[in-house]
Amino acid sequence: MALQVGIVGGGQLARMMIAPAVELGIDVRVLAEQDGMSAALAATDVGDYRDVETVMAFARDVDVITFDHEHVPQDVLRALVEAGVAVHPGPDALFYAQDKLRMRAKLAELGMPQPDWAPVADAASLDSFIAAHGGRAVVKTPRGGYDGKGVRVVAAASDAADWLDALEDGGELLVEELVDFTRELAQQVARRPSGELVVYPVVETVQKDGVCAEAIAPAPHSAGRLADVAGDIGEAIAVGLGVTGMLAVELFETTDERLLVNELAMRPHNSGHWTQDGAITSQFEQHLRAVLDLPLGDTALRAPWAVMVNILGGPTDGTLSERLPAALEAHPSAKVHTYGKDPRPGRKVGHVTVAGDDLAAVCYEARGAASFFTD
Amino acid sequence: MALQVGIVGGGQLARMMIAPAVELGIDVRVLAEQDGMSAALAATDVGDYRDVETVMAFARDVDVITFDHEHVPQDVLRALVEAGVAVHPGPDALFYAQDKLRMRAKLAELGMPQPDWAPVADAASLDSFIAAHGGRAVVKTPRGGYDGKGVRVVAAASDAADWLDALEDGGELLVEELVDFTRELAQQVARRPSGELVVYPVVETVQKDGVCAEAIAPAPHSAGRLADVAGDIGEAIAVGLGVTGMLAVELFETTDERLLVNELAMRPHNSGHWTQDGAITSQFEQHLRAVLDLPLGDTALRAPWAVMVNILGGPTDGTLSERLPAALEAHPSAKVHTYGKDPRPGRKVGHVTVAGDDLAAVCYEARGAASFFTD
Repeated sequence: MALQVGIVGGGQLARMMIAPAVELGIDVRVLAEQDGMSAALAATDVGDYRDVETVMAFARDVDVITFDHEHVPQDVLRALVEAGVAVHPGPDALFYAQDKLRMRAKLAELGMPQPDWAPVADAASLDSFIAAHGGRAVVKTPRGGYDGKGVRVVAAASDAADWLDALEDGGELLVEELVDFTRELAQQVARRPSGELVVYPVVETVQKDGVCAEAIAPAPHSAGRLADVAGDIGEAIAVGLGVTGMLAVELFETTDERLLVNELAMRPHNSGHWTQDGAITSQFEQHLRAVLDLPLGDTALRAPWAVMVNILGGPTDGTLSERLPAALEAHPSAKVHTYGKDPRPGRKVGHVTVAGDDLAAVCYEARGAASFFTD
Repeated sequence: MALQVGIVGGGQLARMMIAPAVELGIDVRVLAEQDGMSAALAATDVGDYRDVETVMAFARDVDVITFDHEHVPQDVLRALVEAGVAVHPGPDALFYAQDKLRMRAKLAELGMPQPDWAPVADAASLDSFIAAHGGRAVVKTPRGGYDGKGVRVVAAASDAADWLDALEDGGELLVEELVDFTRELAQQVARRPSGELVVYPVVETVQKDGVCAEAIAPAPHSAGRLADVAGDIGEAIAVGLGVTGMLAVELFETTDERLLVNELAMRPHNSGHWTQDGAITSQFEQHLRAVLDLPLGDTALRAPWAVMVNILGGPTDGTLSERLPAALEAHPSAKVHTYGKDPRPGRKVGHVTVAGDDLAAVCYEARGAASFFTD
């Protein structure tokens, strides 16, 4: 009998688990939000992941339930656990991924380095935080944000008046200092329910408009202390929050050479897509191994450098497939990954990875190949 | 609209095309012989590949038809071509893969180095060939053999009496000299309909009981002349026989340092499985690109060495999945590929690949991991 993994959510992260699942002989089933999604090939159910009965029915006969995203409500997660279903990451861990205020409080408790932050419920406290932090700050809605949504840089409470007005009784926004960073990094970690944990090389990420545009592995000039500190932070968070499966920790590297925790993702993450062709064990294979409590794979790089460049938006006329021949012809070493999604401005529709010995050449190939898929 | 590839045959070769197809955004459909085969995830039709109507119905709406095996009859292939379906490899090329006598005659015409051979229809001519070649020879049935089936080493015509008796009027067996080889090699080549051709590094293969057991890439001591000669042979055969898609050329390296063509396969082949984790472009991705007439990918190795070890037979009790934890724990750098097939003595049920800098270490890891799946 093959091992059975049920993935809630039919997006590209579920899609990219299909390839390693087929190779390892793991049956993946997907509960997709609708027909024709990225992971349609493995979709066995279509339904609402917020509905307990839908998810419970999907979870029957699988060895473990895992996720394409972190939005499954706590009551659904807890119903699964109470019914004896293995759920990884579990509700206690996902609780922190679902609420950025809870996450900040927990990281503080764990002594993790992070930007100054505070919960704010009214304009006066927000203005006071802004004044104390140089006249600017970042306001975030604690729930539901991703890819830059629910995040706003403000110079006065009035810039967030709509969010403050919309707060329910007892509701709070998260305000954080605007960090003066030199670059952004990301740390991938995998952890099994039985405790084994592995750390990937820390990578540099380049964000555009709040969306990951590139990742370079390993982060240039990260050998030694920087890689060790990033790995230690990743490990401490995975253990401290009880994360199982893949964990991505987005980090700021500050001008005074500190690392501060920005965001977390408890799943394969865009900043780890380079592992598909650049690491011995991809984050998608690793996630499957971790949630099934199988021994974890080697996280070493396959080459000195690996670069991932996102395909954002796609062509304004036609499809990604039509652009494939020219891209492949110009860049025979590039690995093109597409998500089966229609092009739309700003949408993540695919990515390219390249691995090799020379960073400049690897960047050139990856960026060049990706550029064929946009206008 | 995604590119559509229809694969006739639901075995492990079709299965292993699924992963690169998903990543490149190619829709694969499989015509499987029965339910529950290796490529079941992509099976859209179940039926007899010898039946024209079944295959014609399957071929509707795909951009190209390709194959998991070479056994689709010529009348079916020709009906597809006449109906305007793109078929790669095409019937003219597959003709040679389907009949070893025709293949030998064509290779002779192309001036390819091969063992002495002859068609034989009776005991007298067979005994005469054996006598002229040192008292032993290899007899083959021209059609239907694979993995050592239909191949027999004989010392006298009486050893092949059953096959001679079974010959129909005008039928012939193939007899070949028993080559005194030092080792076996395999050359992978990919060719597009529009002519582009790429050559992989030649590999050493180790056969056990007529079945590929291991492949080492590149073949040790193959740099320079040997690799060039093997590549040239592969190219000449692909062009000369009009092969499109992947071509595998099995070669003998003789004690007097010649290369002789043993067998051909016009599809991804066991001797090329190492490319999944050892080459920038796997033979499965390359086959899809080639049959779709897309530009071909880089064939370079990802590491100095890559080794593939077959899992033959599998455990006598239980399943491959049950053996996975111990194998993964002991060999974190090994990539395990399973075919979704029940264990059975001698059956190919999976393989392991490992890539790295040190050949001895790579062999140790690959053989070690594979050994967990057999008794």
